[in-house]
Amino acid sequence: MTVIDEDSFCIKEIKYMNPDWLHKPVSIISNDYVVAARQHQNNLTKPQGSLGVMEDIAVRLSSMFSCARPAVDRVHIVIFAADHGVAEEGVSAFPQAVTIEMVRNFSRGGAAICVLAKQLQAELEVVNVGTVQEHENLQGVIVQRLAEGTQNFSERPAMTPGQLAQALTAGHDAVWRAKKSSAQLFIGGDMGIANTSSATAIACALLNEKPEVLAGPGTGLDKSGIAHKVSVIQRALDLHKSNMQTPVDVLQHVGGFEIAALTGAYLACAQSGLPAVVDGFISSAAALAAIKINPQVKNWLFFAHASAEPGHKIIMQAMQAKPLVDMNMRLGEGSGAAVVVPLMRMACALHSGMATFNQAQVSNRN
Amino acid sequence: MTVIDEDSFCIKEIKYMNPDWLHKPVSIISNDYVVAARQHQNNLTKPQGSLGVMEDIAVRLSSMFSCARPAVDRVHIVIFAADHGVAEEGVSAFPQAVTIEMVRNFSRGGAAICVLAKQLQAELEVVNVGTVQEHENLQGVIVQRLAEGTQNFSERPAMTPGQLAQALTAGHDAVWRAKKSSAQLFIGGDMGIANTSSATAIACALLNEKPEVLAGPGTGLDKSGIAHKVSVIQRALDLHKSNMQTPVDVLQHVGGFEIAALTGAYLACAQSGLPAVVDGFISSAAALAAIKINPQVKNWLFFAHASAEPGHKIIMQAMQAKPLVDMNMRLGEGSGAAVVVPLMRMACALHSGMATFNQAQVSNRN
Repeated sequence: MTVIDEDSFCIKEIKYMNPDWLHKPVSIISNDYVVAARQHQNNLTKPQGSLGVMEDIAVRLSSMFSCARPAVDRVHIVIFAADHGVAEEGVSAFPQAVTIEMVRNFSRGGAAICVLAKQLQAELEVVNVGTVQEHENLQGVIVQRLAEGTQNFSERPAMTPGQLAQALTAGHDAVWRAKKSSAQLFIGGDMGIANTSSATAIACALLNEKPEVLAGPGTGLDKSGIAHKVSVIQRALDLHKSNMQTPVDVLQHVGGFEIAALTGAYLACAQSGLPAVVDGFISSAAALAAIKINPQVKNWLFFAHASAEPGHKIIMQAMQAKPLVDMNMRLGEGSGAAVVVPLMRMACALHSGMATFNQAQVSNRN
Repeated sequence: MTVIDEDSFCIKEIKYMNPDWLHKPVSIISNDYVVAARQHQNNLTKPQGSLGVMEDIAVRLSSMFSCARPAVDRVHIVIFAADHGVAEEGVSAFPQAVTIEMVRNFSRGGAAICVLAKQLQAELEVVNVGTVQEHENLQGVIVQRLAEGTQNFSERPAMTPGQLAQALTAGHDAVWRAKKSSAQLFIGGDMGIANTSSATAIACALLNEKPEVLAGPGTGLDKSGIAHKVSVIQRALDLHKSNMQTPVDVLQHVGGFEIAALTGAYLACAQSGLPAVVDGFISSAAALAAIKINPQVKNWLFFAHASAEPGHKIIMQAMQAKPLVDMNMRLGEGSGAAVVVPLMRMACALHSGMATFNQAQVSNRN
């Protein structure tokens, strides 16, 4: 069933659930550039530190790129879309058909992320890693369907080890396409009805947390809907408990294809030295899994926004991550990550474009 | 001493401290457009409310402009610069000369706000409302010097009633220049060594708050510097207490020319129906004064960011205002306001560019 674009698919043989590339070391970040960039910031015509987080962004990007004047002009956005068997438990406010309908909407440019990508002049591609239904040929959509959605993880493992390896690798390969097109920043997005249930289950398993602490309304459940969602997730956690020893196990048993692809993408970003901006709840669960696989992945991640989904805060705390903004967003699709790109570009512009005290003949502090 | 650009100066005769225009009604905001814009948002292909603050921005701008598809492409930024007599009390970490040095830096494009304005393709002008020294002719700088800085307000009123009227009007006229150039968004910025002392004194007087609660490090005072600043401000508040009955009195006695200009600008924005983005601590003190003069001014203001200056939070709470972002910035110059413009533009783009459920044939919620 999986259709593979030979040109873009980099890893052709996936035989193991735990492919070797997962554990490759991440790219080293130059501390020399951290020091130099901070010093440069301190020489710019402003009180030291007065650009706050904007300074931190520039310093991080400078060190990530080993480049005195970093830029994030070329942004590559990939939305991974897939369906979730657990949707049959009635854990979402929207019908499952919306996943594939939104894939079409992405292709036609009508979704939020399309509008944002256009604003950013970013590359946008969609990877269908497993919608229930097939679809016609769609502009900008790469088809790598691993199954007709995952299995209902409250009854069975969400996917096979082989499917997981392919999902992780789909993320890896998306990053390599981004690298090939000289991207300076990677954004992964998600689309998949019921995927907050999967993300919640992943986070619960990885953090040893209760679903009632982490589960939220997703696309719009009411109180009783959330209570039902909690019970479904709890059932899954109980069912798979003894089989979830590693982060990879967790993804296989309660994950989603698009979430595993995001995990693979973050790992590949860190390995290949491409900064990634993590979106909201789903993406953060994927990032948490990536960080559990290799803690140094975090060095390559920016955390975009504080999602309105209540469990997001707990995942962020667990990663000791601070989001750049809080716009009360909870859409997914990478939309919250896209929203912070202009801030990162401004941070770079300030770093590169401001005059120093010397250049401007401005007196420094008393 | 005041040099007036006849073309751009709209109010030619200023005889009274409390010019009539201050109390003109603010422009009415259409509730019909609020309702229609919210309904439109609810029809877009996303869960209702999932774009959070981005939706709110679009709805507000739609109603402000009485326009179904609002835009903030044309942004007019005005930095008001002036010196403060109170600087002689040693309340700033930087020497007073920095004010005029930064005016030159603005003119040459080396300051943070210049870089940001360029990124935004925004108009940028500087109005010198009262540096201690004169300067050579500078590109992009309008000279309306009202005095060689304000008086030291810990000993005397900061300015005369006539000077205050002129400062307020300088702000008013900057807004009219923005209107003349068809601006869709106004940003006021400040430059003036020691102006956090003035802003703190204004806020203390308007909110009946103690300086130790509101005073902070400004450009970088240490603990003992802040304690000294508190004592200077307390002295001023005690000295002028009986003469500060109205917000206009407060501005005259402990204000700054650039702060009063910002107050005038916010009033003029609200009167003329031009949305303004309020920057950080100094701008918020000016906005507070404007709102105390006419509470409906707030309808026309966006509050950009949570300043790192600790007193900012209290001023924001007093105005029941919520900043859009918290980037830990504390530079002034309108820099924090400029940083949120891309978010506002994205909010508009989403509002105008996304497909509705009907258009995209996406199923709505169950």
